[in-house]
Amino acid sequence: MNGAESLVHTLLDSGVNVCFTNPGTSEMHFVSALDRIAGMRCVLGLFEGVVTGAADGYWRIADKPASTLLHLGPGLGNGLANLHNAKKARSGVVNVVGEHATYHVPLNAPLTSDIEGVARPMSHWVRTSVSADHIARDGKAAVAAARTAPGQIATLVLPADTAWSELSAGTDATASGVSAQPPAAPKVDAARVTAAAAALAGPDTLLLLGGKALRDGALVSAGRIAAKTGCALMSEFAVARVQRGAGRVAVARMPYVVEVAQAALARFRKVVLVGTTPPVAFFAYPGKPSMLAPPGCEFVTLAEVDQDLGDALAALADRLDASVIAPAGIAQLQRPGAGALPGGKNTSEGIAAVLAALLPEEAIVVDESVTIGRAFGAATAGAAPHDWLTGCGGAIGYALPVAVGAAVAAPNRRVVVLEGDGSGMYTPQALWTMAREGLNVTVVVFANRSYQILRGELLAVGAGEPGPRANQMLTLDNPTLDWTALARGMGVPATRADDLAAFADQFARSLATPGPSLIELTL
Amino acid sequence: MNGAESLVHTLLDSGVNVCFTNPGTSEMHFVSALDRIAGMRCVLGLFEGVVTGAADGYWRIADKPASTLLHLGPGLGNGLANLHNAKKARSGVVNVVGEHATYHVPLNAPLTSDIEGVARPMSHWVRTSVSADHIARDGKAAVAAARTAPGQIATLVLPADTAWSELSAGTDATASGVSAQPPAAPKVDAARVTAAAAALAGPDTLLLLGGKALRDGALVSAGRIAAKTGCALMSEFAVARVQRGAGRVAVARMPYVVEVAQAALARFRKVVLVGTTPPVAFFAYPGKPSMLAPPGCEFVTLAEVDQDLGDALAALADRLDASVIAPAGIAQLQRPGAGALPGGKNTSEGIAAVLAALLPEEAIVVDESVTIGRAFGAATAGAAPHDWLTGCGGAIGYALPVAVGAAVAAPNRRVVVLEGDGSGMYTPQALWTMAREGLNVTVVVFANRSYQILRGELLAVGAGEPGPRANQMLTLDNPTLDWTALARGMGVPATRADDLAAFADQFARSLATPGPSLIELTL
Repeated sequence: MNGAESLVHTLLDSGVNVCFTNPGTSEMHFVSALDRIAGMRCVLGLFEGVVTGAADGYWRIADKPASTLLHLGPGLGNGLANLHNAKKARSGVVNVVGEHATYHVPLNAPLTSDIEGVARPMSHWVRTSVSADHIARDGKAAVAAARTAPGQIATLVLPADTAWSELSAGTDATASGVSAQPPAAPKVDAARVTAAAAALAGPDTLLLLGGKALRDGALVSAGRIAAKTGCALMSEFAVARVQRGAGRVAVARMPYVVEVAQAALARFRKVVLVGTTPPVAFFAYPGKPSMLAPPGCEFVTLAEVDQDLGDALAALADRLDASVIAPAGIAQLQRPGAGALPGGKNTSEGIAAVLAALLPEEAIVVDESVTIGRAFGAATAGAAPHDWLTGCGGAIGYALPVAVGAAVAAPNRRVVVLEGDGSGMYTPQALWTMAREGLNVTVVVFANRSYQILRGELLAVGAGEPGPRANQMLTLDNPTLDWTALARGMGVPATRADDLAAFADQFARSLATPGPSLIELTL
Repeated sequence: MNGAESLVHTLLDSGVNVCFTNPGTSEMHFVSALDRIAGMRCVLGLFEGVVTGAADGYWRIADKPASTLLHLGPGLGNGLANLHNAKKARSGVVNVVGEHATYHVPLNAPLTSDIEGVARPMSHWVRTSVSADHIARDGKAAVAAARTAPGQIATLVLPADTAWSELSAGTDATASGVSAQPPAAPKVDAARVTAAAAALAGPDTLLLLGGKALRDGALVSAGRIAAKTGCALMSEFAVARVQRGAGRVAVARMPYVVEVAQAALARFRKVVLVGTTPPVAFFAYPGKPSMLAPPGCEFVTLAEVDQDLGDALAALADRLDASVIAPAGIAQLQRPGAGALPGGKNTSEGIAAVLAALLPEEAIVVDESVTIGRAFGAATAGAAPHDWLTGCGGAIGYALPVAVGAAVAAPNRRVVVLEGDGSGMYTPQALWTMAREGLNVTVVVFANRSYQILRGELLAVGAGEPGPRANQMLTLDNPTLDWTALARGMGVPATRADDLAAFADQFARSLATPGPSLIELTL
């Protein structure tokens, strides 16, 4: 058995059975091993940002890591922006990055680069295997690192000769004595629960939730705490995954715009943090604060993001004698019948109403709608129960790849991507993977033909109204992107919706049709 | 004047007047400054790999740096693969990377990352401006670093508050006392010329050329040296830019395949290196050597790549009393008339013949044809004089972006991109920039619907014939990419050529039509 085979066996033995790949020559022995050893689902991406984003989406839905397969430093570089997003989403990912044979590295061949240096800014754990005999232990360690709460980026660099060399006699090819399972997320201690319980009382106190505090069970505890104490509930802005919809505890999301966030937080004098930190502005702006809470607001941390957040909220509810009361803020089902759907031109409110009415049960919404979608969250609170995923690292181009991974993790659920035309152009190659794998993804592209958010940001930073050169950098209308052509070029059926009636019709048809489809919604 | 304005003035003052951009919020003050200050041509890319690749192509043709504008660590990450390629091509690039305001960085907002860490593996020079007053000097230093022979990657990180802050009274806004011009490339000393002259004698000696030794004037000297000594001429495999075609000194290119390169080098007992190093295999393979020259072959370095290579070759020709003799190996014009063009199905030889016949004078060929194109070089040696650019860092997805930069640098020349369907999918967004800017680019996509090179590599590394899972990672045929739809989706007219007659016809029409067009050539 060679090193590559040892790694594939080790990954499978560790419960990693999906590999998002974009391989090259230095990974051919790993590809060959995947070929010969049954059990790993291999999903090809035509660009590495698709691969790393898919691993992010897979973790968010499956709660376990996938592996990636990337080609040397530049391949990892292409995947870096979505690894950044995955890192900020606290997703666990096992990157396998090929490297030249150890003796070839010093020769400075064209593809030689400092792979560990490229990996480090976006990885929690980086290691280069030094021999075939080490690969199994390194693989186990990588999986354990990826699984370490709340989820980490682990990057294992695999020199070609360690992959192709035979293991020494007697080497344990899967390091069976080594665990790929890290300790469970630690529970919070009683003093924290006591302090949080003392802080929450009345509408000028806030329970601010992040990470896995936004899963259904944890939210039930949060709703009970709110019912008992009268505190408000809110989530951080960057939401890796929130479980919401009718019958679940509704949680408002921290607004993006500084002034709006300040207004939303203005009444709070105490904030209890669960899996998050004091809220900060997405960007700094001249003359505006970076911290969003009002001056003098007191923060009390119930649990850090790497702790057991569901347990922490349950313990707090228990401490407050709220464990069996009805949660506050349960969203009521609000689904207009098909006849009550709005018509007319495509507006943010109208689109939101269509989404709220038609989102299927257990849908996974991947939201990169940027400006047009700021009202979607509130409008869909009473839709059928679903998961809502947002970008967490601010690097646009996350949604189409994350949808790939989510759909691979949950083949029986419908994934709905809400995508801007600007953001979608960073990783459009994901559409091809959706077509190849027959993934049940509905992509809605909001075609406003501009980096609309930057128009607002130019004003927000005090840089004034755009002139001709700035406009050239903010508009996407010359030439106009034709998303239906782009989608068809990658094998995804596509339609264009110029009004809400067309959108509702096309959206309903897409949801009912297996495999991917794309709707370009003109604005 | 604020820091952003100071930087724009400084760049213009330093001769940098093209900026390839993909900005975000943290760069809005720089965008605003570009808007208000005349003189900078701003070219938007919809993905950062387009931006950095364009800067590479611009340098290769203009012999001076463009700047880029990138959005924080993830934006730089997306540009990293083509920065790697630019670094290996020895291109000079000035990256301007926005960063959060200095006081905002410690707050760990979503987009916060270690930008200098991301930059370092692919940069020669990295600096973060610490205040508005420092920006002019930092900008000058960045340009000087980018221009340092043979060309370097300089990355200047610009925190938002240094961009938006006003300069202190009395600060020189363009650091007018500081030079943006580094010392010229040093000349080689006489001892090196003497040693090289002594080494070259007869057909078992080779003059191996890289970098600017492949420009017209240097090649004339090389041809004279060959005529005088009987030595052979060859270029390294990675060729940033070679000037070739009828009337120029023809230079064979180092083959990619190890065995073929070994055979090409087998007869040489002495190799004189000019702007290159002893040739190494692109990848390592089990049981094959990394060094391509025969054992015992002696290497003599005439000039390092950062020295004045044209001067070194002229000095060597002079030392050999060859300064005025006719160069050996002048390529003869070989252009069949339109009636003599090959017909039938699309083959490598037939495509090469069409290219050789129709390439216009002063064309710039950007070659990422990978497997199909290995014969194109020899077949086009007698075409009209042209420049030929190849990928130098091995990261595919370089050609479409490099073509953007080359076309911006030379608006009156025709750029011809020879692109694989696999490699083209890494940075297809470049097509949109070609359309927006009306660039005179003809894109030929060779649609073999696979990572054809990897089929060969799988065999070459001894990993055997692909089975079903490996095949899934090597094929692009399910679904088939429709490049004509992709191109039209980005505003580029496109046609499909199923045979050589159609290709010749479409190629000729594209060359004669201003602006970009794309031909999908089915294989």
